[in-house]
Amino acid sequence: MGKERSGSQIKGMVFDVFGTVVDWRAGVIREGEELGQKKNLDVDWHAFADEWRGKYQPSMERVRNGEVEWTNLDSLHRASLEELLEEFEIEGLSEVEKDHLNRAWHRLDPWPDSVEGLRKMKGNHVISPLSNGNISLLVNMAKRAGLPWDVVLSAETIHRYKPDPETYLLMPGLFDFAPEETMMVAAHVSDLLAAKECGLKTAYVKRPDEFGVGGEAEEPDSSIDIVAENFVELSKKL
Amino acid sequence: MGKERSGSQIKGMVFDVFGTVVDWRAGVIREGEELGQKKNLDVDWHAFADEWRGKYQPSMERVRNGEVEWTNLDSLHRASLEELLEEFEIEGLSEVEKDHLNRAWHRLDPWPDSVEGLRKMKGNHVISPLSNGNISLLVNMAKRAGLPWDVVLSAETIHRYKPDPETYLLMPGLFDFAPEETMMVAAHVSDLLAAKECGLKTAYVKRPDEFGVGGEAEEPDSSIDIVAENFVELSKKL
Repeated sequence: MGKERSGSQIKGMVFDVFGTVVDWRAGVIREGEELGQKKNLDVDWHAFADEWRGKYQPSMERVRNGEVEWTNLDSLHRASLEELLEEFEIEGLSEVEKDHLNRAWHRLDPWPDSVEGLRKMKGNHVISPLSNGNISLLVNMAKRAGLPWDVVLSAETIHRYKPDPETYLLMPGLFDFAPEETMMVAAHVSDLLAAKECGLKTAYVKRPDEFGVGGEAEEPDSSIDIVAENFVELSKKL
Repeated sequence: MGKERSGSQIKGMVFDVFGTVVDWRAGVIREGEELGQKKNLDVDWHAFADEWRGKYQPSMERVRNGEVEWTNLDSLHRASLEELLEEFEIEGLSEVEKDHLNRAWHRLDPWPDSVEGLRKMKGNHVISPLSNGNISLLVNMAKRAGLPWDVVLSAETIHRYKPDPETYLLMPGLFDFAPEETMMVAAHVSDLLAAKECGLKTAYVKRPDEFGVGGEAEEPDSSIDIVAENFVELSKKL
């Protein structure tokens, strides 16, 4: 795999973000704990983070199936947060504090190899996130973490959430790249298989700690073009 | 003017590109001369560049008034190029050579202060182009020239050419900025007045050499919030 099947004809690379580029779980827990200390809250922030993420796909599904009109991820996160505050019996947060907590998703830290790997890949490719996160979320995250994107493409750019095919064809369409000149990078097999359906090349990066340190990475599918331990290794396999 | 009227509440800055960030005329002339040498063409490339730019507003106007459906700037430039090749009696260019010449607009050099000024402004603001140039043009330009955009917003993002109000409200809408928390920067008064109509703050940067060395900058309008000699001075006046 690797050089033979992908190699120099790859012109653009798009990256899943939550779990692939950044550690969403540790970031949300950290922000929760900060708020908890300040407000003297007794909350299991690990469970809180997992519950919040658990509401992610169902909330997007209501947009995908047309039950609600286009709503960006900040707004979906905020609606989920209101539910969580009830479920975890958290009271006494001001509007400003709720908004700040909701934007924890703007302040997630990258995995240790993400910035270095992206810098290397940027030398020979156009690099962009391809995330269901909204544009301001991705931009604020990039400014804080130093993610060196060339352009910020998002589900919000076309009002379609992954795995809608239009999302995967966004970079090829805008840059006049053939789908096979574009590579999708993700730590999630389902995302890659959806990209592959659209003709994109695929790279799987293992993120065993996504759901907590000491977890296990997903089993990669044999149809995936490149499998890498991290972004720096991926940059070398291109 | 300056600190009193704009100052720290500015969160986002959007920049006109052709003429404001980059020297389109010198870049097109340089690319034309390179091609002319290679193909032994006898062409006045200064006139060629001016004619090409002269077709810019009329070509967009046909999109704005609905005469033709949405067409991005690469395609408009290409149609204008075909006309120019006839007018300047340039023959014998291959499809690849024509495409390369058309993408001269992707390879324009910044004014000497642009990169340093943008880097400074990026420290405290979200910075983006707000150009009628298409996204791939702006991204290729930024990669080549080192323009450190946080995000690349373009007329192509919403299929509306400036001065359509929707273009000026793009960053405020995506980032939840009030219009007056967003500043439009341009070397062209008409662009700034259109942005001001939408509630944006405005900064005028003088680019006297846009139409050739030794030219004169436009006269700024008294309603403009900041007037600066260049991007570095602008960064200090914020």
